[in-house]
Amino acid sequence: MSLDAFLEDCAHRCQRLLEQSLQSSSVQDNLLLDAMRYSCLNGGKRIRPALTYASCVAFGGSLSAADMPAVALELIHAYSLIHDDLPCMDDDDLRRGQPTCHRQFSEPVALLAGDSLQSLAFALLAETPVADGHLRPMLALLGRAALDMAAGQSRDLQAENTPIPLDELESIHRLKTGALMQASLCLGALVAGCSDHSVLDQLKKLGGLLGLCFQIQDDILNVIGDEHQLGKRTGSDAELAKSTYPALLGLDAARIYGQRIRDEALQLINHLGLHNSILCELTHFLVARDR
Amino acid sequence: MSLDAFLEDCAHRCQRLLEQSLQSSSVQDNLLLDAMRYSCLNGGKRIRPALTYASCVAFGGSLSAADMPAVALELIHAYSLIHDDLPCMDDDDLRRGQPTCHRQFSEPVALLAGDSLQSLAFALLAETPVADGHLRPMLALLGRAALDMAAGQSRDLQAENTPIPLDELESIHRLKTGALMQASLCLGALVAGCSDHSVLDQLKKLGGLLGLCFQIQDDILNVIGDEHQLGKRTGSDAELAKSTYPALLGLDAARIYGQRIRDEALQLINHLGLHNSILCELTHFLVARDR
Repeated sequence: MSLDAFLEDCAHRCQRLLEQSLQSSSVQDNLLLDAMRYSCLNGGKRIRPALTYASCVAFGGSLSAADMPAVALELIHAYSLIHDDLPCMDDDDLRRGQPTCHRQFSEPVALLAGDSLQSLAFALLAETPVADGHLRPMLALLGRAALDMAAGQSRDLQAENTPIPLDELESIHRLKTGALMQASLCLGALVAGCSDHSVLDQLKKLGGLLGLCFQIQDDILNVIGDEHQLGKRTGSDAELAKSTYPALLGLDAARIYGQRIRDEALQLINHLGLHNSILCELTHFLVARDR
Repeated sequence: MSLDAFLEDCAHRCQRLLEQSLQSSSVQDNLLLDAMRYSCLNGGKRIRPALTYASCVAFGGSLSAADMPAVALELIHAYSLIHDDLPCMDDDDLRRGQPTCHRQFSEPVALLAGDSLQSLAFALLAETPVADGHLRPMLALLGRAALDMAAGQSRDLQAENTPIPLDELESIHRLKTGALMQASLCLGALVAGCSDHSVLDQLKKLGGLLGLCFQIQDDILNVIGDEHQLGKRTGSDAELAKSTYPALLGLDAARIYGQRIRDEALQLINHLGLHNSILCELTHFLVARDR
């Protein structure tokens, strides 16, 4: 299967399941449910679900086995986007080509929608028919990843208007972006029945590298990307005087750095014996994407 | 054991475990960790943990078995208080006699501290050594309760400046306050080994009633309470033209109504065969408390 077909398939499955999960989520307030639906069902690249599906399949599981873990990861991601866009954070008006949640609804509703998507992620995962022994590490990993993501966001905010060294930038992005990608890969492997600690450790390392690949390209697209194609504002990093890879290294060196991290990731995939899996194409995509 | 001694014991255990859990939480940002500690370790009545401990003991479990479920519930409660206090929500300056989290730190840090406390609650519970078969319903219940709590908060905000009927007010408080109390009782029973669905259903009903008891008294204290004793501002409900029990019924009728709900709760406790447990005293306390 080509990467495009795989990504489309993952996005389609994820969309259908998010719709079903929100439909039957018994959220007892219609306005809140509308805001949750608005922020989940508006497209998005579904990269974290794709990583979960790819990892599950690579370890011999079926796509359907990875369905609910993939949805849980996307819900955590969706919650983080809503909160990141709030006026007290990045104060963004546009997300995926549409008004951000707080612009479409209101700040309190957006705050609660983010909170609720986080709760729903854990509730849905806990209700997923996975072997009990695997469910526990999956939930613990998801919780720790969400915790790391928030710590990364906090450190990212503190670094605004302050030049930081490259290793601190890397450390921030390993948390802010890498943590959920690590969890995506590990949950996919766990739900496929792989609970080998050394493999899971390698997958965490891989997730960290993929997070960096993603973030370097995100930084580059914030400089040279097309606002319509991206569905969000560009140039905002420079306005906020954020430390980014292009700001620290220059555009060309940032591109080369991204390719170096990508190659490290590909080596790790080889080392794990997964060189025939779609994970390789996904890794290439992360540093080559234009949206 | 007297109720006072029991509450003190619960609060002491909870405080110690929260300290330990936050210490070893590996939150990779010190500012964020400070804000999380600030909002968790500042006293509080620890009513939800007390309900978890009381329920666990009533069903034959030990206090220590209920430790981590109690902490998880308090973490969800603490997260909700931080977010409720934010400027876009209730915009409160004072909580437990101290500046609210966003006043002490900043809005973004408070937002992320709330988010992180929610993540930590699920991570810690998933890491608790409970029989796998019991862990799953505990995590699902906690997730659903957090979801209901947010829906209640959303409906509560929509009801500001709008007179609502008593049954809608009750419905809001069953979600906003009752949901976590239901989970407190159910998690306590589950961790003690009780997984009888009809018992858990009764405990949910009991939690709903206790939530109402708590909320009616909360509303009354917002009118007649002592700010210093409560550690938060009074009179705010009237300013926001909130529908409350005193506003809808008058103070005296609200008191009587609280006693009626309390008696219903006591009957249910009797019916469950738990009339010798500390749950009875706790129920009396909820409508008689002055802080």
